[in-house]
Amino acid sequence: MRVLGIDPGFSFTGYAVVAQEHNKTYLIDFGYLKLPQSRSLQERVAIFHDQLEHKIKSYQITHLAIETPFLGKNAQNFLKLGYLRGILYLLSHKNNLILSEFAPTQIKQSLTGFGGASKEQVARILFQLFPTLVKPDKYDATDALAISLCGLWQRKQLF
Amino acid sequence: MRVLGIDPGFSFTGYAVVAQEHNKTYLIDFGYLKLPQSRSLQERVAIFHDQLEHKIKSYQITHLAIETPFLGKNAQNFLKLGYLRGILYLLSHKNNLILSEFAPTQIKQSLTGFGGASKEQVARILFQLFPTLVKPDKYDATDALAISLCGLWQRKQLF
Repeated sequence: MRVLGIDPGFSFTGYAVVAQEHNKTYLIDFGYLKLPQSRSLQERVAIFHDQLEHKIKSYQITHLAIETPFLGKNAQNFLKLGYLRGILYLLSHKNNLILSEFAPTQIKQSLTGFGGASKEQVARILFQLFPTLVKPDKYDATDALAISLCGLWQRKQLF
Repeated sequence: MRVLGIDPGFSFTGYAVVAQEHNKTYLIDFGYLKLPQSRSLQERVAIFHDQLEHKIKSYQITHLAIETPFLGKNAQNFLKLGYLRGILYLLSHKNNLILSEFAPTQIKQSLTGFGGASKEQVARILFQLFPTLVKPDKYDATDALAISLCGLWQRKQLF
């Protein structure tokens, strides 16, 4: 079981790959993609597709975990987030991945035991779990890591 | 120049393929796809991708035309519309299509000369243009035809 957690965004897309073996959680890959602002939206959608497909295939991903989004102040940004989610749905089907969606409170609850935890509290738990983790310069990466761990642990509870 | 006009939707997706040759407009294909409600969202996204990719390749499409959406009452439906638009952006890039987006008023203006025209007025113009057109049982198909014609004519004005 290998989970890819994604926090999609047209500026930065956080990603994390985690696995569970012999009751130990391993962090396999972790970081963010930057979609070049100079390129057209079509090209950025295609880069997002190709880079994540490459990760799915090279890490032999079995599960995809994403966060349930809520409409913010900008409806056009919400729609554009939909573009990237559509690509994730396509990749999930084409690669036989099991897709799970979690509300932000579920993710925080799963990691810290408290659904209203702050980003800093979530990050602190992550650094306790993976002491050698290098602090990334974007929260998108730690957000994706939190999503992937939620995907890993929620699944464990189901089977 | 062959334009595929798409009116995307998870229930019904209208599509139309039009071409211009020797100053005459030809209607090549026209109808709607029904995405099975019994299938998962991932599967429906993949069916949408595969069926439209098939049309793009078999009709040697060069241009893709879509309508600019506006946030309605249901934010989740708006987000889901984004999934399908993301797939169209991907297909557009992968198949080197020129993508154009038009506001609903632009499409009505282009067809009827009046941006506030009703669906019936648009349909009447379409049946004048293509007298042998069989009336489809869904407006999604005529909407897509209007979008594709707008794509064809607006382009013509540009070059």
